[in-house]
Amino acid sequence: MSNYLNNFNGDTICAIATAMSDAGIGIIRVSGPMALEICDKIYVSAAKEHNLLKHKANTITYGYIVDNSLPEENQIIDEVMISFMKAPHSYTREDVIEINSHGGMLIMNQILQLLLKNGCRIAEPGEFTKRAFLNGRIDLTKAEAIMDVISAQNNFALEASRNQLQGKIYKKIKSLREKIIYQMAFIESALDDPENYDLTGFSDKLDIIISDIMSEIGHMIDTADEGKIRKDGIKTVIVGKPNAGKSSLLNTLTGDERAIVTDIAGTTRDIIEETVRLGDIVLHLIDTAGIRNTEDVIEKIGVDKAKSMIQEAELVLYILDSTAEIDDEDNDIIDLCKNKKTIVLLNKDDLSDEIKITDDIVRMRFSDTSNYNLPIIKTSMLKGNGIDDLKKAVSDLFLNGEIVPKQELYITNLRHKALLQDSFDSLQLVRNSIEQGLSEDFYTVDLNDAYASLGEIIGEEVGDDLVEEIFSKFCMGK
Amino acid sequence: MSNYLNNFNGDTICAIATAMSDAGIGIIRVSGPMALEICDKIYVSAAKEHNLLKHKANTITYGYIVDNSLPEENQIIDEVMISFMKAPHSYTREDVIEINSHGGMLIMNQILQLLLKNGCRIAEPGEFTKRAFLNGRIDLTKAEAIMDVISAQNNFALEASRNQLQGKIYKKIKSLREKIIYQMAFIESALDDPENYDLTGFSDKLDIIISDIMSEIGHMIDTADEGKIRKDGIKTVIVGKPNAGKSSLLNTLTGDERAIVTDIAGTTRDIIEETVRLGDIVLHLIDTAGIRNTEDVIEKIGVDKAKSMIQEAELVLYILDSTAEIDDEDNDIIDLCKNKKTIVLLNKDDLSDEIKITDDIVRMRFSDTSNYNLPIIKTSMLKGNGIDDLKKAVSDLFLNGEIVPKQELYITNLRHKALLQDSFDSLQLVRNSIEQGLSEDFYTVDLNDAYASLGEIIGEEVGDDLVEEIFSKFCMGK
Repeated sequence: MSNYLNNFNGDTICAIATAMSDAGIGIIRVSGPMALEICDKIYVSAAKEHNLLKHKANTITYGYIVDNSLPEENQIIDEVMISFMKAPHSYTREDVIEINSHGGMLIMNQILQLLLKNGCRIAEPGEFTKRAFLNGRIDLTKAEAIMDVISAQNNFALEASRNQLQGKIYKKIKSLREKIIYQMAFIESALDDPENYDLTGFSDKLDIIISDIMSEIGHMIDTADEGKIRKDGIKTVIVGKPNAGKSSLLNTLTGDERAIVTDIAGTTRDIIEETVRLGDIVLHLIDTAGIRNTEDVIEKIGVDKAKSMIQEAELVLYILDSTAEIDDEDNDIIDLCKNKKTIVLLNKDDLSDEIKITDDIVRMRFSDTSNYNLPIIKTSMLKGNGIDDLKKAVSDLFLNGEIVPKQELYITNLRHKALLQDSFDSLQLVRNSIEQGLSEDFYTVDLNDAYASLGEIIGEEVGDDLVEEIFSKFCMGK
Repeated sequence: MSNYLNNFNGDTICAIATAMSDAGIGIIRVSGPMALEICDKIYVSAAKEHNLLKHKANTITYGYIVDNSLPEENQIIDEVMISFMKAPHSYTREDVIEINSHGGMLIMNQILQLLLKNGCRIAEPGEFTKRAFLNGRIDLTKAEAIMDVISAQNNFALEASRNQLQGKIYKKIKSLREKIIYQMAFIESALDDPENYDLTGFSDKLDIIISDIMSEIGHMIDTADEGKIRKDGIKTVIVGKPNAGKSSLLNTLTGDERAIVTDIAGTTRDIIEETVRLGDIVLHLIDTAGIRNTEDVIEKIGVDKAKSMIQEAELVLYILDSTAEIDDEDNDIIDLCKNKKTIVLLNKDDLSDEIKITDDIVRMRFSDTSNYNLPIIKTSMLKGNGIDDLKKAVSDLFLNGEIVPKQELYITNLRHKALLQDSFDSLQLVRNSIEQGLSEDFYTVDLNDAYASLGEIIGEEVGDDLVEEIFSKFCMGK
C-alpha cells in the first residue's frame, strides 16, 4: 500500500470531526506538517508563557482561539482545549491537533474559517482516514470498518465492523493470499528450475488446495447476503389501498403519531420514511400515498412515487382491509408486487363478522406470481395484533428464521463480496484448466487474478479511483 | 455562591458531550472524585505498562475500552484516546476524564453503559456546568452564556453570549452592586455612629447617585427587547386564505420544496416550522393550514392550531391574493390579527390587470385595529418579488430600522431583564422615599432589594430551585 505515499500531498487539512449540530463539545481536527504552526497563529494559551510550538506530544493545553484581524476587544473567538499528537504516533501518522471547542455550529465554523485563513485546506470526507491508509497505518478493510463502526445501527452491525476493525477480515484474506502465492511461486520455480522442483502430480494436489481455498471463499460469500441484511436492514415499502391501514401500521411500528391518521381516504400525501427495529432486524419503512386511480393532483404525485418505490424495495408489506372485497385496484397492486418478496397483512381482523378476504382468496390472486410461499398474516392495527407474526415472517424470509447470528465473521461490505466472487471465479478457471489437462503455466494468470482480487479487498492492489471512491463515502472530519 | 458547596453531592457523573448523531469523533465526559478509578476499570492502554491511575494531568493516552464481563475475544468495545484534567484545574473543578471514541451513537452508548455499570451516574442536563458554578469557577451569567454560545444561531447571538461568557455583564452588575452597597454601608454606619458620619445633605446626593444607577440599569433594560429579537429571532406566523400563496412564501423564504405547493385549496395540512434568515434577523416561520370555515376533518385540525399560533406569534405575515376580493374569511383573519404586529403581503402583483385589492382597501379594513402604520407590501411569489421590502419592514418594526447592532453590550436573557427591572423598581422606591422626605433608615430595605436582585443575576443570591431550573435547560454533557 505504500505505493501511494508518492501521490501524497503535504497539505495541512482541517475539518469539524464531531456531529453537525449544537452540543456541549465540538472537535476541530487538524492534520499535516503545518498543524502546529497554523494552530499557533490562532491560539493563545491561558498560561501566557506557554508556546504551542514547544508543546509536548500527547498533552493538552487550555487557552483561547483568537482572531488577530479583529479589534482587540473582540479577538477572543472561543475558550478551548488543544491536544497534540506528534507524527508518526497519531491517527494519520502526521502531526495532529484537535481543538476541543464549545460545540455550537456557528462557533465551530468560525474556528474552521480561521484555520482556512491561516493556511489549512478543508479536508475531503474521509481524508484523515485516507491518510492513515496511505501512510500505511491501516489496511483498507480497517479503514472501511471505521466508517461502519460509526454508522452502525444495531449490535450486529457494530460487532461485524468491530471485528473488521480489529483486523479479522484482513488476517483471513492475508492467509488466503499466502496460500495462493505459495502455489504461484512453486509453479514459477519449477518452470525456471525443473531440476530441483518436480511438477509430477502437482496439478492433482493443486486441485485439492484450490478447492479448499474456494470453499473458504465460498463460505465468506455465503455470509454476505445475511450479513448485509443484518447490518443495513431491509428497504421496505408499505402498500395498500386508501384506508386499509397503512399509516396505522407505520405508527404501530414506529410508536409515534408522525403520519396523520384519519378516516378520510388518501390522507398520506408526502412519502414518509422511518427506520424501525423488529427484534434486531432494521426495516427502512417507506409509507406511500394510497395506490389508486385518481385524478387528484396531489395523490398523483404520491402514486407515481409509490410505483418506483416498490421497484426499489427489498420487501413489500401489502396491507389489505379484510372487510372489503378484493377489487381491480388490489389486482393492480398485486401486479406491482410480482417478483418481490412480499408479506400480506389482512387487517381489521378484529371485525370478525365482516371478514370478506381469507388466506385462500389472497393466495389464489397471487398464484400467477413467483410468491409461492407468500406469508399471510392476520392483523388488527386497532388492537396492535399481528406484529409478532410479522417479525417471524421477516426473519423467515431474510434470515432463514435464524434470529441470532450463527458465526463470528460476516462479510457485510458489498465491495468485499464482489471481489471474493471475482477471486472465486478466477480459481474456478484454474480448476477448469487442471481438468482440461492444460500445462502448469496456464494456471498462473488465473491464480494471479485471484490473488489480485483478494489484494484489492485489503487495499494492496487498488487504483487511485477506488481509493477516492471509498473514502468519499466517509463523513467529514474522519 | 459557595454556599452551594454544602449541597454538593460527590457522585461521579458521565454523559455524551458531543452531538447525538453519528460523526467522526464522539466524547464521553466523566467528572467526579471517582473518575480515574471508574475509567481505569474499563480501559486498557495500548502501551501495556501504562496505568490510568498514575496518569499525569493534562495528558492523553491511547488504548481500548474493554468490557471484562464479555468473552475474551469480544471484550474490546472501542479504540479510544483518553484525556485527564485534574481537580481543580478542570471544567468542573473536579477530576475530569474525556473519552474520545468513534462517534457512532451505538458505540458511544455502549461506553456510557459501561461507565454506569462501573459506578458512574448519568449526568443531568447542564450538570457539568452546574458543578463549575457550584464549585465557584464561574458565576451564573457565565454559566448561562455557555449554553448561549453553543446554541447561537447568528453572529449577533454569538457575540452577545461571548461578551457575557467573558464576564462583561458580570463586571457591569458587580460594579452597580458595589455602588449600592457603599450607600447602604454609609447609611448603616451613620445610624450606628452619628458622630463620625454626617447625613446632612446625604439624601440629595443619594438621589443623584441612585438616579445615575437607574439610568445605567434602564439603558441595559432598553437593550433587552432588541437583544432578544436579534438573538432569538421572531416567532412568525404566516396566515391567509387557501391559495393566497402561503406555501409559496414559505418556500421562497426557505429556498426549498418542503411544503407541497399545488393549486388545490387547502393542501398544507400539517403545521410546518422553518427557521429562515432575513439578513441577520431570524424568523421562526410557522405555516398554517388555510384559515377558512370548513367541515373537512383534516383542515379543521390545522385551522384550530392556526388560531392559537397567531395568539403566540410575535409577528403575523398576512398574505392576500390581490386578484380576489376581500371577503368574510379575510375579515375573520383581520380580527385575529388585532393587536399583533402584522405585515400584509398583497400577492400575485404580477397579474396587474386583475388587481382587486389596493393598499387603501386593506388599510380601511384594518382601521379599527391597533395597526395604524400597517406595512403593506406588494409581492409576487411567482416572480420572487417583494422579499427585500419584507426584510425592511421587519427591521423597521422590530429594530427601529437599525440593521447593525448599535453597541457592545446587550441583555439577551429574559431572566436578567426581569431582575434588572426589579432592581430598577426598588431604586425608584428609594427615590420616592427621598422625595417624601422620609428618614434614611427607610431607604435601606429598598436599596437592599435592588442589591439582591442584581445579585441574583450573577448567582450570588439565588435559591436551589432557580439553579435547578437554569441548568435543566442545558444540553446533555455540558
